[in-house]
Amino acid sequence: MIGTPRPRPDAPSKVRGAMRFASDQPKRGLLHGRLVLAQRAHARIVSIDTSAAVAVHGVVAVLTAADLQITAEGTDRLSRPLARAEVVFAGEPVALVVGRTPAAAADGAELVRVRLQALPTVVDPEAAMVAGSQLAREELATEGDRTGAMDAQTHAGVGGASDESIDAEDLSDNVTGRYRYRQGDPLGALSRSAITREASFTTSWVHQGYLEPHACTAWVDADGTLVVESSTQALFSVRNEVAKALGLQQRQVRAVGTPLGGGFGGKWPLFDTLAAAAAWKLRRPVRLAATRTEDFAATNPGQPYATTISLSADAEGRFTHLGARIVTDAGAFEEGSAESLAGVLVAGPYAWPAVDIKAYGVRTNRFGVGAYRAPSAPQMAFAIETTVDEVAGALGVDPIELRRRNLSMAGGQMVDGEAWAAHGAAEVLDALEATATWRDRASAGTDEGVGVALGYWPGATNAASAACRVSPDGSIQVLTGVADMSGVAGGFQAIVADALGISPDAVQIVTVDSDAAPSSPGSGGSTITYSAGRAIRAAAEAVGERLLAAAALQLEIAVADLELVGGAVQPRGTPDKAIPLAKLVRAHARAGRAPIEAQAGADEPSLAPSVSGHVVRVRVDRETGAVAVLADHVVQDVGRVLNAALVVGQQHGAAVQSLGWATHERLVHDANGQLVTGTFLDYALPRAEDVGRLEATSVEVPAPDGPLGAKGIGEAPVIAGAAAVANAIAAATGVRLRDLPMTRPRVWRALNP
Amino acid sequence: MIGTPRPRPDAPSKVRGAMRFASDQPKRGLLHGRLVLAQRAHARIVSIDTSAAVAVHGVVAVLTAADLQITAEGTDRLSRPLARAEVVFAGEPVALVVGRTPAAAADGAELVRVRLQALPTVVDPEAAMVAGSQLAREELATEGDRTGAMDAQTHAGVGGASDESIDAEDLSDNVTGRYRYRQGDPLGALSRSAITREASFTTSWVHQGYLEPHACTAWVDADGTLVVESSTQALFSVRNEVAKALGLQQRQVRAVGTPLGGGFGGKWPLFDTLAAAAAWKLRRPVRLAATRTEDFAATNPGQPYATTISLSADAEGRFTHLGARIVTDAGAFEEGSAESLAGVLVAGPYAWPAVDIKAYGVRTNRFGVGAYRAPSAPQMAFAIETTVDEVAGALGVDPIELRRRNLSMAGGQMVDGEAWAAHGAAEVLDALEATATWRDRASAGTDEGVGVALGYWPGATNAASAACRVSPDGSIQVLTGVADMSGVAGGFQAIVADALGISPDAVQIVTVDSDAAPSSPGSGGSTITYSAGRAIRAAAEAVGERLLAAAALQLEIAVADLELVGGAVQPRGTPDKAIPLAKLVRAHARAGRAPIEAQAGADEPSLAPSVSGHVVRVRVDRETGAVAVLADHVVQDVGRVLNAALVVGQQHGAAVQSLGWATHERLVHDANGQLVTGTFLDYALPRAEDVGRLEATSVEVPAPDGPLGAKGIGEAPVIAGAAAVANAIAAATGVRLRDLPMTRPRVWRALNP
Repeated sequence: MIGTPRPRPDAPSKVRGAMRFASDQPKRGLLHGRLVLAQRAHARIVSIDTSAAVAVHGVVAVLTAADLQITAEGTDRLSRPLARAEVVFAGEPVALVVGRTPAAAADGAELVRVRLQALPTVVDPEAAMVAGSQLAREELATEGDRTGAMDAQTHAGVGGASDESIDAEDLSDNVTGRYRYRQGDPLGALSRSAITREASFTTSWVHQGYLEPHACTAWVDADGTLVVESSTQALFSVRNEVAKALGLQQRQVRAVGTPLGGGFGGKWPLFDTLAAAAAWKLRRPVRLAATRTEDFAATNPGQPYATTISLSADAEGRFTHLGARIVTDAGAFEEGSAESLAGVLVAGPYAWPAVDIKAYGVRTNRFGVGAYRAPSAPQMAFAIETTVDEVAGALGVDPIELRRRNLSMAGGQMVDGEAWAAHGAAEVLDALEATATWRDRASAGTDEGVGVALGYWPGATNAASAACRVSPDGSIQVLTGVADMSGVAGGFQAIVADALGISPDAVQIVTVDSDAAPSSPGSGGSTITYSAGRAIRAAAEAVGERLLAAAALQLEIAVADLELVGGAVQPRGTPDKAIPLAKLVRAHARAGRAPIEAQAGADEPSLAPSVSGHVVRVRVDRETGAVAVLADHVVQDVGRVLNAALVVGQQHGAAVQSLGWATHERLVHDANGQLVTGTFLDYALPRAEDVGRLEATSVEVPAPDGPLGAKGIGEAPVIAGAAAVANAIAAATGVRLRDLPMTRPRVWRALNP
Repeated sequence: MIGTPRPRPDAPSKVRGAMRFASDQPKRGLLHGRLVLAQRAHARIVSIDTSAAVAVHGVVAVLTAADLQITAEGTDRLSRPLARAEVVFAGEPVALVVGRTPAAAADGAELVRVRLQALPTVVDPEAAMVAGSQLAREELATEGDRTGAMDAQTHAGVGGASDESIDAEDLSDNVTGRYRYRQGDPLGALSRSAITREASFTTSWVHQGYLEPHACTAWVDADGTLVVESSTQALFSVRNEVAKALGLQQRQVRAVGTPLGGGFGGKWPLFDTLAAAAAWKLRRPVRLAATRTEDFAATNPGQPYATTISLSADAEGRFTHLGARIVTDAGAFEEGSAESLAGVLVAGPYAWPAVDIKAYGVRTNRFGVGAYRAPSAPQMAFAIETTVDEVAGALGVDPIELRRRNLSMAGGQMVDGEAWAAHGAAEVLDALEATATWRDRASAGTDEGVGVALGYWPGATNAASAACRVSPDGSIQVLTGVADMSGVAGGFQAIVADALGISPDAVQIVTVDSDAAPSSPGSGGSTITYSAGRAIRAAAEAVGERLLAAAALQLEIAVADLELVGGAVQPRGTPDKAIPLAKLVRAHARAGRAPIEAQAGADEPSLAPSVSGHVVRVRVDRETGAVAVLADHVVQDVGRVLNAALVVGQQHGAAVQSLGWATHERLVHDANGQLVTGTFLDYALPRAEDVGRLEATSVEVPAPDGPLGAKGIGEAPVIAGAAAVANAIAAATGVRLRDLPMTRPRVWRALNP
């Protein structure tokens, strides 16, 4: 039953439209919040006149920052959900209108008069780095604390140890993060080099594009508990952030998760502290369900990177040196900015005799920064993997073979000094080489080309716990606080089914609120199946031991002579003496014995990188610059396939999402920091007709710490997609694209320089 | 912190009116059910014409038994929530009108035309026992299965082993239970007797009188789960009974508990299967919130007993023989009938050289039978304790001394052959003797008298489990599926606080739904603190061990040298090196170690009887027969006081409730089985002005298996109240009252024979 494809347990209700999301939940006396968004990207607030808004029939309150009982002193977004004295991006919430209906709140929001005194807008990270340049947040002229509001688990657990020399660089206070990774002898390495390729790359702000806009509802319960019901990836983060913002004990706050209508990294706590503060102030239930416009303008999308790479190799194609300079736009709220991770990921899954990598995060007047499926990894893969492809071409070495020669080995040193864990890059390369798309690349038609690229995700790791119970009907309940963003419940079912010899259908995955849930990590960074799955496995195994012990007592047979098979306990190899679990558990209960339940915790596991590659075939329309992706074959090392349907779903979804990044998606601001792509008309997600033939192959290199060897699989398959498309375009046309997305105008201009 | 009085955690919200009960819960698209009740006590259903009801604007459906998709074949009330072919009591639901508003449903219910063909009504249990007499349920002419729909835990775990000779008695099929307990040599015992007192007693049907009528709401969730949200004492019973009735797997049903607005035994599953069947049929949310009239007419109140006792003693006042014949009205649905337990409890906490006790349950055309605080125990205490009092008077022995001479000892034989557990009867008698009310009894004024009586409750026992977790703020969450009927959460807090050396306020008791909860018994029979408290204690201790281990790692000190004190771990006796739990847990989490949580189960414990007595002073108004209870001093062996406020609250509440039984409360039917006391105007609960001075004393004889020695305390203090009032009346007037309630007319008639 491990590995067989089974549908997601939540699929039928989602397909039928029966699922109730955060903004569908009924609540007696519910009030509705509507945001008043700043119309300038950088300004001082002169005054906020709420009188006309308050007078609107049905408006209950108009709240500004001064009204919120927020006691946290941090300058992060969750501690500052409404602008105080300074507006720091166009779209920043400056007031919240609370009405008895959404319409009343919207009418009120139109009438709030916000007087702003414009300040110079900081939108160019490179310019903003220069010492003495205009600050994006004057309120932080003396650098405040950089509170990591987004829990560390969104990012993989790498990227820490930075070379201290970078701290001496004279940069402006807009630079919120700086990291330098330096290894080996650069001069010696370069002296052995036969070839060096240097190039610069840019990527764009990208929005997570979930179907369900942000939504949360907060109220004060009868017992004084502040409840926050939220469409969130991270139940405990909601509880902890709300408690911190309002100066409450964690036990005074209860976070309730609702089914996620998509997350992709964007559904970490965001409006939760605002809704909570409003409910706390008004002592009435307040819902904040973002409109699509608010969701584009005021959330935390994925940040862009400007990367310059210098890659050297010897004549046999062995990499000798990697130089890189990475600058990322950390937006106005840099809590999620991933420059330190980018500095590690730019080196790819390769071994380098010498590296010198600098990575900077720079504050600007744009958004907050959020996670978006493998933060920084696709952007870095776009740079390194297209450069590797170029070097392969220059040296006349097969691109897959070139990668194979340079793969990092387990125990080798990553650029931040951490040891490489074992990974399946070699196996992925073999599988990529075996795909029909790759084998048939010579038969590409006119203006067609095939490209390959590799990517890896180190994988977030967390401690976790879970509980498991057997009901009198023999079914198994597993208790977790994990938000199921991507169908992980299906994997959990397989893990438990394998441990207990039952059908996955007999396993219920029960997600509960933060009062009741076993401590569970937020869903991000591919941590869940790997980290929480370990705890679930351990809890199921403990229940299995108790089932065997109960059967041993009833059958008067030693535990060692019993096995769990087919929803029953039986003497080994003797199915005719099997006791079905339901019968066993009922007899156990009748005898007055303690219920068969278990709780288990798992320590944070070691890193378990997942490697994934794409082979892409494109056709380029030289007249229009349009790039058609004819085929995309994703190959991924998943450790162990727990549920083939879920794995393939992740891989197909990743292929489509990386296609969007490759050719369509970007959030564009004008020079004043005004967002000009704030709807799905302007921000183009791939449509079904944009997607060519999708294929997916999983290879299984078990993770030593993973449940049944499984790894986190959500991030890795999205990483190499855009790079593979770029390499395929180069194969088709001989032209290198170095800016994402590779839109028709950009491709046309590259073809017609 | 053990034993100190602390307010119930749920008190503020109840006092302020902020608590939301079952019928306050919002639900989108909610429909409202209204019952159509049978107007005759016994009849055949000729036809049910729903056409006029269906035509009412806002009526969505009118359901009869044939419409429900109930597959269970049992004849118990939960399998037969609407009458099929036969009406078996006046007030039995025969149809359910479902409307968009309660008013529409009520209008519809008025228009349902139920044609009944009358059958002879069975209301006299004694007559109904005679072989060949009219059957109360003709549909069961061939005796169906007697499904025990109410879980065994409502009753104490005694009363099983019956003498088989009773099965030979030629009785009608109305007799649904018959038990005989026979021990010793009756002839020899009687030959040693100096005195025999024989008397007959009756008690009445009594309603649990909770403030909140029965209410439950059922719906089918997006994933197909049938959810039942109910004001219930027994979460898992709701799940299991609904699954059984509708032929579903337990995992297809989820039971959600709501705060109880009183239970007292009456809130075991009742309308849950009906609401669930309606929601299952209509695929829409259906609420069934009983009106007070429905709640009086159609629920499961406490059953009445007719008891004849013959008590013999030797000249020194040592009991020699107890004969008893007990007949209880088991109503039309006898699933909760407690005659087997009554047969044991009638013997009191005394040792008997010989007994011959017969107990019968007899089906009639009245209600179903429910539990009501110590089912059968107050009724039996009324019989035995007033007879003991009479014997004491006849022998000239002090009534407390007479009881002391005859107390059962640990290891001695109960009348059903079980061994007596240790109990605190001797200590309770000492404390009763020491009360001012007893010491000053000689100073009673004219028509005043002081009476004493004893009672005991064997205590229900169950296996249970619980989970415990430490949050980063150092607070403790305890997870349970226990419905908090009587403030048990406060006792749980004390148990956990003691185990972990923290303040009870830092402990949250979290009750969750049947999907998520650790297996937990229903709240009844005084099982919770004793049985579930054991599991909570074990889970807290396991967490304590993990906390010590974590501190040992951080401090590099052996676990044995550490202690949990004052919300911290410290080297023994070294508070200046204490690490607060919050700090300890956060460091533990930062190190990536498994969260500190634990789950623990506890086997069913041994019996732990709680003994309680009352000393009551009354004044009798000879003109009117009015009995004023001037003072009531309750003494109880509680094992260990966990929270003095809760214990005293139970004891004061019990004193008031037993006063109601003693002098006011009864459900009266006319000869046709029609209820004539169906409102709180007719069914008189005690008012504040009826209650005299209340005092309470707890003695502590630890239960070996109890958490910190605690026993279940809810039932015992209610048992002896009415008997003590009767004995006080006898002391005041010389007249013995033998029928409950001792209303003014009855007292007046006894005084004026």
